[in-house]
Amino acid sequence: MTTTPDNKFSFGLWTVGWNAVDPFGTGTRPVLDPWEYTEKLAEVGAWGITFHDNDVFDFDASDQERHDRVMKVKEAADAAGLVIEMVTTNTFTHPVFKDGGLTNNDRSIRRFGLRKILRNVDLAAEMGATTFVMWGGREGAEYDSSKDLNAAFDRYKEGLDTVAAYIKSRGYNLKIGLEPKPNEPRGDIFLPTVGHALALIAQLEHGDIVGLNPETGHEQMAGLNYTHALAQALNAGKLFHIDLNGQSGIKYDQDKAFGHGDLASAFFTVDLLENGFPGGGPRYEGPRHFDYKPSRTEGMEGVWESARANIEMYLTLAQKARAFREDPVTRELLEAASVPELSESTLAAGESLEDFLADRSSYEDFDAQAAGEREYHFVELYQQAMRHLIG
Amino acid sequence: MTTTPDNKFSFGLWTVGWNAVDPFGTGTRPVLDPWEYTEKLAEVGAWGITFHDNDVFDFDASDQERHDRVMKVKEAADAAGLVIEMVTTNTFTHPVFKDGGLTNNDRSIRRFGLRKILRNVDLAAEMGATTFVMWGGREGAEYDSSKDLNAAFDRYKEGLDTVAAYIKSRGYNLKIGLEPKPNEPRGDIFLPTVGHALALIAQLEHGDIVGLNPETGHEQMAGLNYTHALAQALNAGKLFHIDLNGQSGIKYDQDKAFGHGDLASAFFTVDLLENGFPGGGPRYEGPRHFDYKPSRTEGMEGVWESARANIEMYLTLAQKARAFREDPVTRELLEAASVPELSESTLAAGESLEDFLADRSSYEDFDAQAAGEREYHFVELYQQAMRHLIG
Amino acid sequence: MTTTPDNKFSFGLWTVGWNAVDPFGTGTRPVLDPWEYTEKLAEVGAWGITFHDNDVFDFDASDQERHDRVMKVKEAADAAGLVIEMVTTNTFTHPVFKDGGLTNNDRSIRRFGLRKILRNVDLAAEMGATTFVMWGGREGAEYDSSKDLNAAFDRYKEGLDTVAAYIKSRGYNLKIGLEPKPNEPRGDIFLPTVGHALALIAQLEHGDIVGLNPETGHEQMAGLNYTHALAQALNAGKLFHIDLNGQSGIKYDQDKAFGHGDLASAFFTVDLLENGFPGGGPRYEGPRHFDYKPSRTEGMEGVWESARANIEMYLTLAQKARAFREDPVTRELLEAASVPELSESTLAAGESLEDFLADRSSYEDFDAQAAGEREYHFVELYQQAMRHLIG
Amino acid sequence: MTTTPDNKFSFGLWTVGWNAVDPFGTGTRPVLDPWEYTEKLAEVGAWGITFHDNDVFDFDASDQERHDRVMKVKEAADAAGLVIEMVTTNTFTHPVFKDGGLTNNDRSIRRFGLRKILRNVDLAAEMGATTFVMWGGREGAEYDSSKDLNAAFDRYKEGLDTVAAYIKSRGYNLKIGLEPKPNEPRGDIFLPTVGHALALIAQLEHGDIVGLNPETGHEQMAGLNYTHALAQALNAGKLFHIDLNGQSGIKYDQDKAFGHGDLASAFFTVDLLENGFPGGGPRYEGPRHFDYKPSRTEGMEGVWESARANIEMYLTLAQKARAFREDPVTRELLEAASVPELSESTLAAGESLEDFLADRSSYEDFDAQAAGEREYHFVELYQQAMRHLIG
Repeated sequence: MTTTPDNKFSFGLWTVGWNAVDPFGTGTRPVLDPWEYTEKLAEVGAWGITFHDNDVFDFDASDQERHDRVMKVKEAADAAGLVIEMVTTNTFTHPVFKDGGLTNNDRSIRRFGLRKILRNVDLAAEMGATTFVMWGGREGAEYDSSKDLNAAFDRYKEGLDTVAAYIKSRGYNLKIGLEPKPNEPRGDIFLPTVGHALALIAQLEHGDIVGLNPETGHEQMAGLNYTHALAQALNAGKLFHIDLNGQSGIKYDQDKAFGHGDLASAFFTVDLLENGFPGGGPRYEGPRHFDYKPSRTEGMEGVWESARANIEMYLTLAQKARAFREDPVTRELLEAASVPELSESTLAAGESLEDFLADRSSYEDFDAQAAGEREYHFVELYQQAMRHLIG
Repeated sequence: MTTTPDNKFSFGLWTVGWNAVDPFGTGTRPVLDPWEYTEKLAEVGAWGITFHDNDVFDFDASDQERHDRVMKVKEAADAAGLVIEMVTTNTFTHPVFKDGGLTNNDRSIRRFGLRKILRNVDLAAEMGATTFVMWGGREGAEYDSSKDLNAAFDRYKEGLDTVAAYIKSRGYNLKIGLEPKPNEPRGDIFLPTVGHALALIAQLEHGDIVGLNPETGHEQMAGLNYTHALAQALNAGKLFHIDLNGQSGIKYDQDKAFGHGDLASAFFTVDLLENGFPGGGPRYEGPRHFDYKPSRTEGMEGVWESARANIEMYLTLAQKARAFREDPVTRELLEAASVPELSESTLAAGESLEDFLADRSSYEDFDAQAAGEREYHFVELYQQAMRHLIG
Repeated sequence: MTTTPDNKFSFGLWTVGWNAVDPFGTGTRPVLDPWEYTEKLAEVGAWGITFHDNDVFDFDASDQERHDRVMKVKEAADAAGLVIEMVTTNTFTHPVFKDGGLTNNDRSIRRFGLRKILRNVDLAAEMGATTFVMWGGREGAEYDSSKDLNAAFDRYKEGLDTVAAYIKSRGYNLKIGLEPKPNEPRGDIFLPTVGHALALIAQLEHGDIVGLNPETGHEQMAGLNYTHALAQALNAGKLFHIDLNGQSGIKYDQDKAFGHGDLASAFFTVDLLENGFPGGGPRYEGPRHFDYKPSRTEGMEGVWESARANIEMYLTLAQKARAFREDPVTRELLEAASVPELSESTLAAGESLEDFLADRSSYEDFDAQAAGEREYHFVELYQQAMRHLIG
Repeated sequence: MTTTPDNKFSFGLWTVGWNAVDPFGTGTRPVLDPWEYTEKLAEVGAWGITFHDNDVFDFDASDQERHDRVMKVKEAADAAGLVIEMVTTNTFTHPVFKDGGLTNNDRSIRRFGLRKILRNVDLAAEMGATTFVMWGGREGAEYDSSKDLNAAFDRYKEGLDTVAAYIKSRGYNLKIGLEPKPNEPRGDIFLPTVGHALALIAQLEHGDIVGLNPETGHEQMAGLNYTHALAQALNAGKLFHIDLNGQSGIKYDQDKAFGHGDLASAFFTVDLLENGFPGGGPRYEGPRHFDYKPSRTEGMEGVWESARANIEMYLTLAQKARAFREDPVTRELLEAASVPELSESTLAAGESLEDFLADRSSYEDFDAQAAGEREYHFVELYQQAMRHLIG
């Protein structure tokens, strides 16, 4: 399968660069320098790359080291024709963040965390990134009683507003993408789902440049439907970035290749990304960013086989989704299921509340019994999707 | 244990009135008239009752029947000294709502559903209720492809705004409480968690009178922390009502008595409700509403034993929580865990972004290594809570 | 797609016959007599049917009614050319079984339940069924403390051994298939998974005719891999029957059509059923039995569309699985992944423990570092499967 | 609270010794030598310790190093008066085991893994341990297709039988305890639950010395009831060892202190361990082994606070459980719930199948309607337990 830049496939350097340490095992692959991955990523079809500050330089790197290493990544990306579309800050690996960055009980650590973030906002802008993801993986608790929860939400908002205000003050062309996750590494992470993050953003002062970066597996770790999450974010005008990967149900974060978890759900995700809602409406136009990990059993060959798998899965699903939507049978079944009718407003244009209350046909004379017997053909419609997916 | 009206304990008539039909079994208890429960509810300690329209009269009751039966409930409540604090509309039992009320693909059903709701808003106001709960249990899907998701969110908002506008137009002293649930009876319910509901409310035109009615078990069915959910809703000024019950993890909706699921979590929920956040902030002052079901193994004696269990659990936990908070050892441990410090803003009062960036002590001169080694004593603090809970 | 009797597709009468009552809603479809489904089932491709006693006659039917109704089903099946391959007893719907049949705390109910089962063993034999499924959905508890667990396992074994002994005493050509489920309708069901049931069978006196009837969704409700479950049952010589359906993760029992849940998992299930283990070994030769429910949104047209979907999904997956296995690329990748090597015994034929301990190449001289770097190509192999599944 | 040796509290050296590396963070605590923990463990109340080979010496330690380090642990244990009650082999950390030890697709690795295990069986015997735990955390798969599942079960059995045969051949006083886990670090681990392990043991040649070591959190990660798991293992005569800890629902493996997860479940676990089944039967007499991890937020003070929390929780729960069982009200409620009646066999002593079939009172004349209305008082009994637990 061939990819084009239009696909906007991007990969985190930490994905193919993961050396496969897990809670019960040491690394099975070598740690390479980040610039060693760029050429190969371009080769497998990437249009862009992304990274955390500490994917490129150490937590305690000197300014010189930091600069040198960042430049080498930038040069390698340029050489390979790769866009650096997103940069983010690591506020989870170092012990100082063991109770979080923005919501750490310790104020001096919150100040340190916020400064680390602001510093890397500059880096993101310098690299030409347009999205600045914030994954608050350590913002949370294992133990009820260990946090003043109201204060935690206040501090979270203060932190996000500070970062957003800073971006505006510097005139950067950057938007913030929050990445929710229900748990792991903390027992209960604040902003566990797309919903919780959207809700918090609505309370921000500078929420206009703060949106979402939903990850497939993270929503699925809470048993939720990823495509529904994307839809609610789109409906709210807040789908700024996406992290595609694969997860097999409610368990630890698996970060498998996209499509290598819940396959049917991946199909409908791609259908939404490529074809939009059936009745039109907001579209996602950003990168197709893969945030996966090559499984620990894989060697370096497996790293690249799995990187390619993400793209191959996406392209195959996109092709199937297009055919599904274009098939006249699909259109008939959507009609039979009254899917287009959901785009009609419930009250008529210009219908007032009092008009509505006076409309006997809508209630007093409505035959609820008959309406309760109507067919929706939802199973047939789904089976039609399956026919396109595996037929 | 004795209760006082201050406790504001209330029960849905559908709780003790459930006759124990489940997906694999027929009812094990008689179906009584709703007014037969009121005296006994007062006796076990209830201050208030709540109901769905169709807990009291049939879906297709005549106006006369409807009026007669509602009046009998009202009289029985008055006689027993019970407040009718909340009324809600059933848009899930009848076949007409099999694809939902507000988000049904079928516009005529959406209009019918909305009219049914408006009609019972009048009833709620007439009964003196101050909360109108809306549980959209049928708003959702089993099959990706069966809904235009963007349209679904638009219709959900249209429906909620119509109800809220109606309440305002009539001058009713009523607030709407949305009740999220991740699934069951639909495969994926829209507004699966407190976060998703808060997010949707933020998009409403009349969102000022729309808030949350979070249910213990519903959040726990998504593996989420109920106390965290209450806290985010409080922080957003949106905790309008609560549904307390018991759930044992991620599975079907169990609706056990409060405290008969995750006991430690119930303790921290009561601690928040009774004692507020450690550093102050928004408080919940509404009813302690129990939305549970007496298990199907129970006969009528078991119905009342289980009703009493809710109250006994709450009062016992409240007593323990007060002692936990008042214990000087607790205060020392909260201090050792820097819990109060989370209430201090991260930037100082009046500190500008530029001041902050110029503060070398916060970043350049900060000893992250030392800070990473600090003790938080979270386990000791939790163990202190356990000492009060079971000691 | 065309089916042949070799496919041995069968359906429970309770599947298409479900009238769509759920915990929050009344029936959306008419209740028909069981014989009204047979012709149509044959038409959609069924080779066989199955039923519970009370799918055909009421719990308190007279002997005459029972006989008449059973005979009408038998005649209808014969007329349609359908085999009655499995019969089972309902010990879960009636209130008498609210605490279980075989493990009810009440001995008189255990005796009644066991007699009800024995009576329907006769019926199963009379109908020519070869499998007698036992789903102990009510054998369990919501409350720790409510059961003497050791006694419960003893009674479960006593009950199963009594049924098995009865089958032997009558010389029936019947095997028992236990159907595990983790929860719903009870909070914790005894024998929650295939593993627990296999373990209990190993303790039976008449365990030789007791095996498993694993249901797709039931294993997935515990977050487990259904194909692994089938494999362990096969390895133990205990896969007597299967219940195929669809489930979307850990939640209430969805009973969707086969393949309409975890699609990739369904593919590997069919791969095992149709192609066996890569290295040979025990095969499943019994019916492909669908135990699903047409979703509550569906009318009678949807009932049959969904029945057909099961068969279409199975046949499509079977075709894909055959092509996957026959593809030389697959064979190469299996080889590269050392899959065939797992069939070689770890100790050589005839190698004694002492020989093994003396083999320095296996330990002292083994290069663990090099072996830890080997490639398995598991992702590439899986991607190869995906290519066949959706390519 | 004071402990006595009778309590047999033991800790893995890897518990307090964990330096808090997790999938998203580096260690927050120093790595000490294993012998540095013994004195302190004795001080907090431990009677015994346990370890993996590589908790004490490196994977590639020389024989001399191995011997020296093991002896230092033994001496430290002796000095502190601690029993080394269990020893186990690490077949999961090193990259060589990335696809498992006993079920690795690569035969040379299986041979190496088995030899490593046998070598440490000698060590276990030398240390005086009586249990040899085998946790097959890497025996599993992320990808359907990557294993020949039938071969995997065959190899698992071959491996276990080889170890058991070796123990017998050497005359060691050692029993094997299998430790099931559903997932993490593999996507699907073979032997995911206590049930699956019991089932496999039943297929072994030397299964008489192979039993279970169930871990609280591992069963709960599959949404299962830990006390039910212990009960089935006891009923099968296979509860050889236990791993007590705390887990908050279905998510990554938390390894919190015992009782710091599902508190009510912990109470009933202790009730079973301390008081046995209500009607008598098999008892667990082995060590109360804690397999927990001090949370990553904790420093060295937190390590010991959390170690103590395990013991304090256990002793408090034991005290409560004793009082619960001794309370005459409890006995009355157990009677009312017919709990003791479950110990009566369903068929009378000497009652033949034919006698049973001829007993009209058990079926034909049985009043199922009345029996279906009986009260069980399960909620009241549970509430009685709660009164003792938190009252």
